[in-house]
Amino acid sequence: MSGQTLSPKQIGIGMRISVHPHSNDFERIILDALKETHRILQLDEPDTGIEIATGEVSTYVGVKSGDAAPQLAAYAATLIHSATLDSDGQHLTSHLLLSRGCPGEATCQLVPGRIPAEKDVHLAKSGVIVAAAWSLYPLADDGSSHMEPIMAAVDEAKASGLTVTSEHYATILRGDLSDVLSVIFDAWSTVGQEVPHVVSHVSISINSPSVHNGAGAA
Amino acid sequence: MSGQTLSPKQIGIGMRISVHPHSNDFERIILDALKETHRILQLDEPDTGIEIATGEVSTYVGVKSGDAAPQLAAYAATLIHSATLDSDGQHLTSHLLLSRGCPGEATCQLVPGRIPAEKDVHLAKSGVIVAAAWSLYPLADDGSSHMEPIMAAVDEAKASGLTVTSEHYATILRGDLSDVLSVIFDAWSTVGQEVPHVVSHVSISINSPSVHNGAGAA
Repeated sequence: MSGQTLSPKQIGIGMRISVHPHSNDFERIILDALKETHRILQLDEPDTGIEIATGEVSTYVGVKSGDAAPQLAAYAATLIHSATLDSDGQHLTSHLLLSRGCPGEATCQLVPGRIPAEKDVHLAKSGVIVAAAWSLYPLADDGSSHMEPIMAAVDEAKASGLTVTSEHYATILRGDLSDVLSVIFDAWSTVGQEVPHVVSHVSISINSPSVHNGAGAA
Repeated sequence: MSGQTLSPKQIGIGMRISVHPHSNDFERIILDALKETHRILQLDEPDTGIEIATGEVSTYVGVKSGDAAPQLAAYAATLIHSATLDSDGQHLTSHLLLSRGCPGEATCQLVPGRIPAEKDVHLAKSGVIVAAAWSLYPLADDGSSHMEPIMAAVDEAKASGLTVTSEHYATILRGDLSDVLSVIFDAWSTVGQEVPHVVSHVSISINSPSVHNGAGAA
């Protein structure tokens, strides 16, 4: 048993995503973006590697098969991009929760086996500039070294050409939506090769008025 | 040195909070809610125990002195309640990141010392019903037992009379905003007595149309 290579479903790889158009028209924008993402990624095809369930607070996207990070990143990029295009320059935020290593809803018992290497994420430039507050949490570590993979991921973000600053409890990435998502999904997926249970939370802000007028976004 | 009782500032106790009115009028609602919270909690007084810095993506609230969880919970409850009252039944979401044990921005070197016991959170009922997707992460644990305090916290939420269900990667709490926040802040603060570094992420949804029409919130 312990020699088998685990599937994404066995490892429990997936995310929760929400988009928040700051607009009276938010419901239509969200529903249209979900439909558009479904269409662009051809999620009606029988061989799609992901499953989707939309709930009251956010949408769950779980990986059944195939390369986990690239599929999830493509879903996130397409959903956020679609909603942004439809929002006509209005402020929009998105929240992501990425999780690896917790296949059950509440328990985190891993099946014994080998964790497969993940492919890097490659996304075409979106033309949408974002600010993202990013936190990465390796959970099942040895109790002392959990900051090391985080620092390595931050260094990688800096090397990628994004603007990287730090705030309390989060690293702020600024740049093209696709580049920001690539760094975030790759870092999570890379740490996941070493640490069985790793989660990442991201708050993305697009067209924030506080960039222009200095007024605070709460 | 190791006998001293650490201050909240030395431990690094604080949160990031954002509110997202799904309304064309979002900017005024956010700025008014920040001001109203400042006024209600009398944050101009020289002896206030918290410090506030509003950034592009969210607002940082750090605890300098006094009881950490009750002060942070009061800020969160007042800000969300104020924005909800001003949103006139429109959909509003809020995101919280609670953190203990990471006093620096990027490093988590704890000063040696005793972690003081925290007071329980008590908030008057708000009359606002919310759904919250809640995740709790004890980080600097011994590598195997990090699910135990989480399960204990979930049991406590159930005992408190809230509706508790689980989704992938999050526990869903439904009930009065004040009761939901009390459970979340108390759980985080209780786990923080045992585990030096513990964070919690919460997505709160108010007046979601998907409750009424079954349409998905993305």
